[in-house]
Amino acid sequence: MDAAEFRRRGKEMVDYVADYLEKIEERPVYPDVEPGYLRSLIPTEAPVEPESYEDIMKDVERVVMPGITHWHSPNFFAYFPAASSYPAMLADMLCTAIGCIGFSWAASPACTELETIMLDWLGKMLQLPECFIAGTDGHGGGVVQGTASEATLVSLLAARCKAVRRVQTLDPKKSEAEILSKLVAYTSEQAHSSVERAALIGAVMMKKVPTDNLYGVREEMLKKMVEEDKAAGLIPFYFCATLGTTPSCAFDHIADLGPLCNQENMWMHIDAAYAGSAFICPEFRPLLNGVEYADSFNFNPHKWMLVNFDCSAMWVKKRTDIIGAFKMEPLYLKHENQESGLVTDYRHWQIPLGRRFRSLKMWFVFRMYGLQGLQAHIRKQVGLAKEFESLVRADKRFEICAPVVMGLVCFRLKGSNELNQSLLKKITKSREIHLVPCQLSGSFVLRLAICSRSTESRHIQQAWQHITQLAFELLQEHRH
Amino acid sequence: MDAAEFRRRGKEMVDYVADYLEKIEERPVYPDVEPGYLRSLIPTEAPVEPESYEDIMKDVERVVMPGITHWHSPNFFAYFPAASSYPAMLADMLCTAIGCIGFSWAASPACTELETIMLDWLGKMLQLPECFIAGTDGHGGGVVQGTASEATLVSLLAARCKAVRRVQTLDPKKSEAEILSKLVAYTSEQAHSSVERAALIGAVMMKKVPTDNLYGVREEMLKKMVEEDKAAGLIPFYFCATLGTTPSCAFDHIADLGPLCNQENMWMHIDAAYAGSAFICPEFRPLLNGVEYADSFNFNPHKWMLVNFDCSAMWVKKRTDIIGAFKMEPLYLKHENQESGLVTDYRHWQIPLGRRFRSLKMWFVFRMYGLQGLQAHIRKQVGLAKEFESLVRADKRFEICAPVVMGLVCFRLKGSNELNQSLLKKITKSREIHLVPCQLSGSFVLRLAICSRSTESRHIQQAWQHITQLAFELLQEHRH
Repeated sequence: MDAAEFRRRGKEMVDYVADYLEKIEERPVYPDVEPGYLRSLIPTEAPVEPESYEDIMKDVERVVMPGITHWHSPNFFAYFPAASSYPAMLADMLCTAIGCIGFSWAASPACTELETIMLDWLGKMLQLPECFIAGTDGHGGGVVQGTASEATLVSLLAARCKAVRRVQTLDPKKSEAEILSKLVAYTSEQAHSSVERAALIGAVMMKKVPTDNLYGVREEMLKKMVEEDKAAGLIPFYFCATLGTTPSCAFDHIADLGPLCNQENMWMHIDAAYAGSAFICPEFRPLLNGVEYADSFNFNPHKWMLVNFDCSAMWVKKRTDIIGAFKMEPLYLKHENQESGLVTDYRHWQIPLGRRFRSLKMWFVFRMYGLQGLQAHIRKQVGLAKEFESLVRADKRFEICAPVVMGLVCFRLKGSNELNQSLLKKITKSREIHLVPCQLSGSFVLRLAICSRSTESRHIQQAWQHITQLAFELLQEHRH
Repeated sequence: MDAAEFRRRGKEMVDYVADYLEKIEERPVYPDVEPGYLRSLIPTEAPVEPESYEDIMKDVERVVMPGITHWHSPNFFAYFPAASSYPAMLADMLCTAIGCIGFSWAASPACTELETIMLDWLGKMLQLPECFIAGTDGHGGGVVQGTASEATLVSLLAARCKAVRRVQTLDPKKSEAEILSKLVAYTSEQAHSSVERAALIGAVMMKKVPTDNLYGVREEMLKKMVEEDKAAGLIPFYFCATLGTTPSCAFDHIADLGPLCNQENMWMHIDAAYAGSAFICPEFRPLLNGVEYADSFNFNPHKWMLVNFDCSAMWVKKRTDIIGAFKMEPLYLKHENQESGLVTDYRHWQIPLGRRFRSLKMWFVFRMYGLQGLQAHIRKQVGLAKEFESLVRADKRFEICAPVVMGLVCFRLKGSNELNQSLLKKITKSREIHLVPCQLSGSFVLRLAICSRSTESRHIQQAWQHITQLAFELLQEHRH
């Protein structure tokens, strides 16, 4: 395929993409396929000779589309949103074409520099404390990670390195292995599974902190555990706070937890993967109060800020903490400017070496929407969640299971877990809307998250009508 | 921006991309900017109101392009190639539009299933042993990782988990901390820095194995170290072999190393990040002999197989080894089909949770090029490297520093390291071509890698003319 054919096929693809998104509602949101469905639809080996582009595009509809869960359907309410917008898609085309691998400043200065500045722009939108802004000579700054899981892991590894060094400074006879075996990290029992996984990877102990009745961690619970562990000879070194948990969008009390962490020399990382986007609205910003005590903070513009996956924004207070944990300098990656002090080599900030020019997506989205446009997007989706909440509250057969603060509604039929499991099975099977469950205080709960940019009030009304219809049928069946 | 405007802007972007790649040679390959250049060119904060698309595209040329190192210029010979092709770009547009997050089978069955099958196709192209092919009921199989660094880390963590369990089975009194402190991993002193970094992350000791005079690890060197370490009470558990090292594209002798690793219960991972693509050509396949002893194997189609970044292909012999090291199952990620045994949930195979639909790029590229087209691409680039090698060998002022097996030529001026450093500085400053150095046996060596899909013989001839001209000037200066 030469440039001339790419011009033609590329324009066809633009139309295919626009058609797909304009008519996505016509497709069932959840696919009707059995495991293994795809293998019988295509050959068992790659072709030796080239095939035609027409044949491939035909197979997109024949082979791929029947097996897609349509995350951008207005009827998709599962997990948390995956962001999508036209400006981000255009930027992504440009990113792919430039195709630079931005592991160091020299590997493409614009890739590194635009990223640092976009993280500054975004940090200012969130009113992050000055210490997280790179500016021209800050000690802190931001980086784009692939996912919140990676941000959590990077923060835990930086904290681990810092803790080992601190203990060894006080007691040079202690071996690293001995220290590692005594380190203990903490996170909420409601935290995302990736937090526990980070500790598993980092080979450190992690303890789950119980939450209050709104599923947030309070300072006194963590304090009690830290004191017991210290008395037992362990070394508390890390706390991962969550703002907007995955099950119910609950918030840990970071304004109280932060001072405790600082006092105990524990790294505080804040994972606000979903909720973070909302902090650009003044009415939600108070939930971020206490971030000034954090060592690192992360949220995913690729969830709720219209920047297509992947784009996970992470800030650290002291960039040397992160760089120090990872720095490796083979000659083939050295370059002339790196010792100037003005240069950021992002490969020291992350797990992978290679990285795409992801800040282009942020630049396009921030400028095409403006802060006001982004705020309007958040407020619209929160409004839709509130609308759904009202519908649930008005129906006495149902209950709301957690405060509806942002775009997530946790609800269930009053009754057994089995009943609610049956309801979810019916919903999934009917393929009109798509939800996933969670567990709260031992209860099986349904989560409805406002996900698609194209979800409107009518979709909420239809979804509720559909759910109540299925619930009605279910309750009828149970009566017989 | 609505769908109608996206149709218009998308088509403009397709033309912008085609123009960029068609005329890339007119741009200096390496940018003429100082660290911090970008900050003064754009505002310090995001706009409150939306801006126009025209203004943003103007800024792409004004702000971004002057700071780009053009990886797809035919005059770019640095690092290793970053793959790029039009079919992959089209597939990437589709991937972005579908925008599913494929962490589990249910999150988009097609995303998981096409990936498994594409890794089978690719594994067959490489003639991998059957045990690495998923087929319909295999124990092994493939996965797309983001980067080779992540593949290495995943393999090391799986090996660590397996080793701890094995030792604890033999001696249940041993604590995990005690075992971890005795585990020792090995890799070549020529291995990529990410291998050492994986051990740092995994908190295990890693030792560098010396290489022979062609920079490959031989069985006797590893054997000696393993025996000494075992005698000292350590537990050898992992060896990362390299096929095609970053400095000089050297090859470890895996056909001999493999049996040793198997016998010693050491996980053998093979990192063939760059060279792996060439194994689809029968003339290069013998270099992969011994892969049958490996527990995991990885290479990057996003380097040399025309699939745009990111796409790092990894195969494991026993998928349970990898899944066992990571599995976490919160309710919101569970789905009905996962216990059927037919289903792959790729989130257990990788560090991040989220993942893009990257196998679409493989599918488009494999079908549009066919195996023959991909082989032709590899052979053409190897031919260009051989052409450059001949030019160097014909000039008595220069020497070739390592065998030219694939698309990389390591060469230098006969003389001091300082002289060669000066030559590279002149090359970098002139911005006509771009190279990076490496260190081989204490010598500062220049690396010329054939990178761009658009590099032709005339670029090789021009590059050599340019290098010899600068060398001539340099040698004149040194004489005075």
